[in-house]
Amino acid sequence: MIDTLDIEALCAGRHVAIVGAGLVGAGWAIVFARAGLNVRMFDANADITRRAVPLIEAQLEGLRRHGLIDEAPATVLSRITPVATLPEAVDGAAYVQESVLERVDVKRQLMVELDALAAPDTVVGSSTSGIPGSAFALGLSISPRVLIAHPVNPPYLVPVVELVPSPETAARTVEFADALMRGVGQVVVHVRKEVEGFVLNRLQAVLLREAWALVEEGVASCEDVDKTIRDGLGWRWSFMGPFETIDLNAPGGVADYAVRLGPLYQRIAQSRGHDAPWDVDLIRQVESHRRERLSQADLEARRAWRDERLMEFAASRLAQAPPV
Amino acid sequence: MIDTLDIEALCAGRHVAIVGAGLVGAGWAIVFARAGLNVRMFDANADITRRAVPLIEAQLEGLRRHGLIDEAPATVLSRITPVATLPEAVDGAAYVQESVLERVDVKRQLMVELDALAAPDTVVGSSTSGIPGSAFALGLSISPRVLIAHPVNPPYLVPVVELVPSPETAARTVEFADALMRGVGQVVVHVRKEVEGFVLNRLQAVLLREAWALVEEGVASCEDVDKTIRDGLGWRWSFMGPFETIDLNAPGGVADYAVRLGPLYQRIAQSRGHDAPWDVDLIRQVESHRRERLSQADLEARRAWRDERLMEFAASRLAQAPPV
Repeated sequence: MIDTLDIEALCAGRHVAIVGAGLVGAGWAIVFARAGLNVRMFDANADITRRAVPLIEAQLEGLRRHGLIDEAPATVLSRITPVATLPEAVDGAAYVQESVLERVDVKRQLMVELDALAAPDTVVGSSTSGIPGSAFALGLSISPRVLIAHPVNPPYLVPVVELVPSPETAARTVEFADALMRGVGQVVVHVRKEVEGFVLNRLQAVLLREAWALVEEGVASCEDVDKTIRDGLGWRWSFMGPFETIDLNAPGGVADYAVRLGPLYQRIAQSRGHDAPWDVDLIRQVESHRRERLSQADLEARRAWRDERLMEFAASRLAQAPPV
Repeated sequence: MIDTLDIEALCAGRHVAIVGAGLVGAGWAIVFARAGLNVRMFDANADITRRAVPLIEAQLEGLRRHGLIDEAPATVLSRITPVATLPEAVDGAAYVQESVLERVDVKRQLMVELDALAAPDTVVGSSTSGIPGSAFALGLSISPRVLIAHPVNPPYLVPVVELVPSPETAARTVEFADALMRGVGQVVVHVRKEVEGFVLNRLQAVLLREAWALVEEGVASCEDVDKTIRDGLGWRWSFMGPFETIDLNAPGGVADYAVRLGPLYQRIAQSRGHDAPWDVDLIRQVESHRRERLSQADLEARRAWRDERLMEFAASRLAQAPPV
């Protein structure tokens, strides 16, 4: 389903290195191997690398079951080689995807090591969801070749990836990452400034903030807030973004919508500030509601349910015409 | 697919009146008729009532094509009777769904008329998306039997409905509307206070406000903001609400998530106020982006595309186990 010729040429036959082989790193290994690229996978903790292999096998089996890979799982898996050292992983790599711990010092240390190890044209993408490149990737000779490539978990199911350059990232690096990500089947969002939370988590943040406030004020239960999205807004947002949604929701398009509904939205915005922190008692209250519906012991099974739904959703999206 | 016995008993064999037969009213007529109830449909503009019938026929045909109705479209349609006067529509009705113009004076006038016409136990639901019952439904003998029943368009596809009592609405009225709506296959969200925008539009409002701001500041294009939802967040939100999403996204559940990611969300919230109005130049800019992608002339065809996707989505949801 993915044209592998372009990315083979883009990578000049060289492999992709996965550094950090936890859930996120293992997910990325699937993305690249599924697209036909060879992958070397490393984690500073050898146990994590070892556990990643059966995890990847199980995930590939799920993809096969839902018709989301064309090849046998074993064929895809055969392209992923766990390695014992960082130099082995990085040597000769066209691209490095790092998914190590979300700590500035850990990421900085890795950049210093990559600066010494990587070929002079290797591009490095970071999976960080919250740390801008400026905080750990400046002032090295490798800095122009580093950017953020922030996935949604799991990246082999949910295609969006945010590319965020630091002030030192070269335009060529962004172009390479854009071509590579699109080549392996991801959907690229270009984040042009290093804002806190990038785009995806900023959008999630404001919705969550309002969700917490509605529960706090007794306007709706957390279950009813969930229903409003799950059985309402989420239906459209699963195949149209918020701008396309409102563009289609007024006879004359988005500007017409702004005229008709702008005043309502303005009154909503004025009715609340959104900069209070999530309240501790409120969190406890929602936690206890959630645990009544789903016990701590059942969280893992529910995550498996979620991943099954995501695979069904991915399969149904594959069967449709792509959005314009 | 809907158990019609309960709602027959609930309505004691009486019909449902649709007052206002535009897009929203016609959509409601399908919801009730599909569930086996008899419907009388009235609009003060006879042309609108006339146009509603072929519109409903076309919509029923779409539902049949996607396996979303069990009966022949003609059978469902035969339960919908267009009538020429408000008294004919309302006389003997168990429930009235009003979808007239979104103007306080128009809604108030209708309530005064219904007060004189409706049986002493008729319940009235208003489709308004923005006007609280307090603004038009107080001080009448019918007031305890009036509440807001705000749908997403089209209600026969997207199931969520917000029930919002006014301070004068009786608890029994909310109970009746809850049972009726669930009986006809809708998903009920109880909005316990008359807040501006209820729940659904408040959640949409904050997400849109951040979306506009990201485009305004040059962080991302409106197309890339759309992709972030359509190919990212929207996937999960189509079958899980925001609370369930974060509950599954940390090892220990929602409280654990709040500890891990609370500080990031707090920094995001503090980085921006959200009470500025949508900017006129910005709206013009997004309008022009959208019209480059989709001309004014193609809006209608794209709306048909959207409705096809919603029907596919509804059919795929029907095939799945319901959410817990």
